[in-house]
Amino acid sequence: MSKTPALVAVDWGTSSFRLWLMSADGTVLAEHRSHEGMSEVAERGFEPVLETHLAALSAADHLPVVICGMAGSRQGWVEAGYIDTPADVTTIGETATIVPGTARRIIIIPGLAVRSEAEPDVMRGEETQLLGAHLEMPGGERYCMPGTHSKWVSMDGATVTAFETFMTGELFSVISGKTILRHSTGDGSVDANDPAFLTGVRDGWNQPAKTTHHLFSIRAGQLLHDHQASDNRARLSGLLIGAEFAGAGISGDEQVGLVASGALQRLYHAALTECGVKVRGIEADVAVRRGLLESWQRFSNTNGDRQDQ
Amino acid sequence: MSKTPALVAVDWGTSSFRLWLMSADGTVLAEHRSHEGMSEVAERGFEPVLETHLAALSAADHLPVVICGMAGSRQGWVEAGYIDTPADVTTIGETATIVPGTARRIIIIPGLAVRSEAEPDVMRGEETQLLGAHLEMPGGERYCMPGTHSKWVSMDGATVTAFETFMTGELFSVISGKTILRHSTGDGSVDANDPAFLTGVRDGWNQPAKTTHHLFSIRAGQLLHDHQASDNRARLSGLLIGAEFAGAGISGDEQVGLVASGALQRLYHAALTECGVKVRGIEADVAVRRGLLESWQRFSNTNGDRQDQ
Repeated sequence: MSKTPALVAVDWGTSSFRLWLMSADGTVLAEHRSHEGMSEVAERGFEPVLETHLAALSAADHLPVVICGMAGSRQGWVEAGYIDTPADVTTIGETATIVPGTARRIIIIPGLAVRSEAEPDVMRGEETQLLGAHLEMPGGERYCMPGTHSKWVSMDGATVTAFETFMTGELFSVISGKTILRHSTGDGSVDANDPAFLTGVRDGWNQPAKTTHHLFSIRAGQLLHDHQASDNRARLSGLLIGAEFAGAGISGDEQVGLVASGALQRLYHAALTECGVKVRGIEADVAVRRGLLESWQRFSNTNGDRQDQ
Repeated sequence: MSKTPALVAVDWGTSSFRLWLMSADGTVLAEHRSHEGMSEVAERGFEPVLETHLAALSAADHLPVVICGMAGSRQGWVEAGYIDTPADVTTIGETATIVPGTARRIIIIPGLAVRSEAEPDVMRGEETQLLGAHLEMPGGERYCMPGTHSKWVSMDGATVTAFETFMTGELFSVISGKTILRHSTGDGSVDANDPAFLTGVRDGWNQPAKTTHHLFSIRAGQLLHDHQASDNRARLSGLLIGAEFAGAGISGDEQVGLVASGALQRLYHAALTECGVKVRGIEADVAVRRGLLESWQRFSNTNGDRQDQ
C-alpha cells in the first residue's frame, strides 16, 4: 500500500536544512537532513541545493515545494515578509510568497512580527511549527519554542496574540565559547538531571537580575573551590534558561506547550518541571511538517492550485 | 625642586600594562603604558618586559617595584593569593608576595575573595584601587568599579564586607561582536548622552528579567523599523549596564563612589545619574597609584624594608 508523493516540505534555517517527501495525508515517504543552512548556501544558490536533494529522491518535476524558515529572510532566497500580530496561524499559507522563475511551484511561508516601536520582535520558521502544534494539540495558550533564539508565544485559539524572543541559546554558545568562562565550562552536553543544571534554573528564575553576576561566579567557583567543568557548564545552561523563564513570566501552576526535540527538549522539560509548570510536549519535526502540509493546502485552496496530484 | 624616585608602581592587567615612577610622596615622575598585558607577556616572561620598561626610564637598580592586577593570578608571574572578605584594605600590602630570584625587590599585591560556596567571587587589582579610593575620599559605603568584569563593593570604614562581579563589559564585547547583533550594532563608541543609551539603562534596571529579550528586540528593531547602528549599540550598552544596576540593587537615593576613567567613567556617571544615584567620582589611575604607594609603605613597615631610598 505505497503512497504517492504529493508535496516536498522544507524547514530551511540559518544553519540547517531538513526536507521531507510527503503524501497528501502527511505520511513521510523520505527525509533528507544537512548542514546546508542559509549561511552556507547563500553563495551556491538556493535552487541548485534544493534540486540536488530532490534529484537524489527522484522527486517528480511537478511536485510542489513548501518552505519555512530563514530562507524567507532578506538575506535568504526570496524575502517572504511578515504577518503582524495578532495573527491567525491557520492563514499563513494563504500569503506565502511564490519563488519566481522556477520550473516547479515553490512557495515560502511568511514570518510573524510584533511591530511595536519599543519592543519589536520577529519569528521565521516557528510560525509554521506553531500552526502544527496548534493542530496536533489544540487548546494551548502558551508555547515555549527553545533554541538559538527561544520564543515564548501566547495564543488565543488559533491566533498568536503576542510573542517574545530570548537569545538564550546564542548567549550560551558565546559565553561558554568566547568569554573567560570558556576556561571553566569545557565541552560536551548538559545532563538535564544534573543538580547543577536544576539549581541554575532556580537561581536564574528567582534572581534574574543577578544573572551576569552568577555567570562570573562560575569562574570564581572554579578558582576557589575547584568546581568541575561539567557542573559549571550545566549551571551556565540552567542560569540562562531560568532567566528566560523569569523574562517569560512563567508561574508555577500554568501549562505550557513545549515544541522541541532532542537535547533541548530534555533540558527544557526538566527545567519547566523543576519550576512546577505542566508540560505538554510536541516534537518540533512533527509540528513543522504538519504546519507545512497545512500551509500548502491553504495556499492551494486560496490560489487554485491542485491540492495534490 | 626635582624629586627623587622612590618606587615603581605597576598595574598589570590581562590586556594592559601601566607603570609609574613615583617619589615617596606619591608624585608621578614618569609614566609608561603598553598593551603588554598578562596574556601577551606570558610567553616572553614578565621580568624581561618589566626590566625593559625600567631601563627605558633609567630606573636605579635598587628601586623597588609594587605590582597589582592579574600578574598575581595563577596564570600570571607569581600567584599572590587572595585575602578573604571581610577584609581590611589598608592591610593588603602586608601580605604581598615577594617575587623570588630577582635582583631588585618586587612585590605583588594579593586579590580579594568571597569564599562562599553558593556565590563565590574574586577580584585582583581592584582591591588596590579600593584602598586608594578609600584614602582619597573616606567614608564611602558603596563603590562601583566598571570594566570588563564590573565590581560592586560594600565597605564599612576600611573593611570590604562584600562584593559582586558582573560580566557587563565582556558581555557587551561578545554580544556586539559575536552574535546576530553584530549586524545591528556596528562599531564606534557610545555617547553617554544618547537617549537610546539612557532608555536602555532604565529598561535594564526596571526589567532585568527581560534583558535577553530586549537584546533580540534590538535586531528586530533594525529589521522592522530600520533603527540605526549607533542607537542600537547605545541601547545594548545601556541595557547591560542597567541590568548590572538591578543586580547590584541600587536605590535612587544612595551615594556611590565611581572608580573609573575615560569613556567608561562618562557612561557610568550618566547612567547612575539617570537612576537618581549621587556619584562621587575618583579617577581609576589616581586610585590605583595611591593604593600601590600605600601598600608599599605597609609592606616596608611590616617587613623592615626601608620605606624610601
